[in-house]
Amino acid sequence: MTGSGSGSGTYVAVVGPGHDVSPALLAQAREVGRLLAARGAVVLSGGLGGVMEAASRGAYEAGGITVGLLPGPDRSEANPYLTVALPTGLGEMRNALLVRSGDAVIAVGCSWLSEVALAVRTGVPIVAIECWDLPEDGPLRVGGAAQAVAAVLGD
Amino acid sequence: MTGSGSGSGTYVAVVGPGHDVSPALLAQAREVGRLLAARGAVVLSGGLGGVMEAASRGAYEAGGITVGLLPGPDRSEANPYLTVALPTGLGEMRNALLVRSGDAVIAVGCSWLSEVALAVRTGVPIVAIECWDLPEDGPLRVGGAAQAVAAVLGD
Amino acid sequence: MTGSGSGSGTYVAVVGPGHDVSPALLAQAREVGRLLAARGAVVLSGGLGGVMEAASRGAYEAGGITVGLLPGPDRSEANPYLTVALPTGLGEMRNALLVRSGDAVIAVGCSWLSEVALAVRTGVPIVAIECWDLPEDGPLRVGGAAQAVAAVLGD
Amino acid sequence: MTGSGSGSGTYVAVVGPGHDVSPALLAQAREVGRLLAARGAVVLSGGLGGVMEAASRGAYEAGGITVGLLPGPDRSEANPYLTVALPTGLGEMRNALLVRSGDAVIAVGCSWLSEVALAVRTGVPIVAIECWDLPEDGPLRVGGAAQAVAAVLGD
Repeated sequence: MTGSGSGSGTYVAVVGPGHDVSPALLAQAREVGRLLAARGAVVLSGGLGGVMEAASRGAYEAGGITVGLLPGPDRSEANPYLTVALPTGLGEMRNALLVRSGDAVIAVGCSWLSEVALAVRTGVPIVAIECWDLPEDGPLRVGGAAQAVAAVLGD
Repeated sequence: MTGSGSGSGTYVAVVGPGHDVSPALLAQAREVGRLLAARGAVVLSGGLGGVMEAASRGAYEAGGITVGLLPGPDRSEANPYLTVALPTGLGEMRNALLVRSGDAVIAVGCSWLSEVALAVRTGVPIVAIECWDLPEDGPLRVGGAAQAVAAVLGD
Repeated sequence: MTGSGSGSGTYVAVVGPGHDVSPALLAQAREVGRLLAARGAVVLSGGLGGVMEAASRGAYEAGGITVGLLPGPDRSEANPYLTVALPTGLGEMRNALLVRSGDAVIAVGCSWLSEVALAVRTGVPIVAIECWDLPEDGPLRVGGAAQAVAAVLGD
Repeated sequence: MTGSGSGSGTYVAVVGPGHDVSPALLAQAREVGRLLAARGAVVLSGGLGGVMEAASRGAYEAGGITVGLLPGPDRSEANPYLTVALPTGLGEMRNALLVRSGDAVIAVGCSWLSEVALAVRTGVPIVAIECWDLPEDGPLRVGGAAQAVAAVLGD
């Protein structure tokens, strides 16, 4: 569903580890994706596996638009749940592009995610599920997918 | 229409001037977009006006997926015919991202387009409609939209 | 005279907050710069104030080479202690360039620095002075400038 | 010691082919570098061979500061005449960084240089030695090194 054009809708970047993710965390990520799509949001991610794939899958299966900004130069790295897969060749620098092109960020798990710091520094709203203890001026900590989506899209 | 996932289909970047474009050239760009969408290709562009908007419009109205990589930091710059609009904040550096994330490039008009040199240098297939005289090792010169699309997608 | 050419020497990125830095932390940063220059290392930084300026100053006054990768498009933002000041126009995305072009990173203070996560993720050696509690697989925590420089350049 | 700090001086990006360059063109590039250094300018380049190396060599041997923005992730690609060698990992995208961080551009030879289009598009003064025929609103065409340097630094 491409909706009403103009790249309409809110764009939410879902970030998190691509490997060694627990089934519970993957389920959270997929539910985040599903809820975002149900609210008409576009789901951005890094386009690879783990949390990125689970969030994309949740949104994609719910009929939403999903975009993957891949770190490498090759589209074949993409997970199978992307409407649009863009190989950037930027490596980890693409994380900054994710944060910049999102209206908000949801972090699912926190494994040395530069996106968290970038969002805090540049004033992009960010919420986190299952994150480390971090200083109070950082991401809003929420308990699960529903709260995360409500926090970024409103109730 | 999001198709079969995996960001499937060929991605073609359509590049050209954003201002002061003749009606004839705009018609060519729109037809390029329409034909690409009819063949299932995803249309990438810089997301602004002129050739970018015309190509996006042609594809969008034909039910295709269109992606705009905007130079500025603000999604509101986008033309109204984009499935996905990504503000990159990279300025003219986003041209390199366009070429990198495309499987081929179609230049419609040639107004100091860095994309042409980037495509030639990095081996991305490129064809040009209404371009300057350029050395022979440069873009394939074609007469119009149908030839351009046939050149990049095959007959 | 800039030494033996080939951009010789180890390149160390010194990262830290640009504002609201305590005099003690500024002194640490300046000492880091001084010690790096005394060992022949090139000091990279974000080129602005605070920790960036103090580290550049320490190195510059010791006769070292200092490079600032500025976030904005304008060289005039640079602090006065840079051999080379490069406006990147990349915003916070230039942090990834700092980490990528450094052989090691020294973080002086930890105010939502994406460089820390980027270094950990991409395997660039990183040590931190006065940082938050972070998971054990993160930066090596050291007590001061001398230990930091010894950690990255060897004793 | 590298002069008066603040990254002082004019920064001139010298661009041109890295391979298959005639001895005459290499001599021009080296002379461009020498003259720029003699006038106190910092010489930026892509840091590799051919025109990039010749310009860096001319400046370096004249005691100037030379900076190479390498396309790959590895400093060892650098030519031996660089004060500062920065591996960007950006590929051809680093050309945009060269143009952005220069106050002016001198093109020595014109082999599908995206820098020419980028400079024209973003209003960075550009002059060209031994370039193709290009539209009149493009680079100023000059006959040799002395004219090129005079054009960008003034007589």
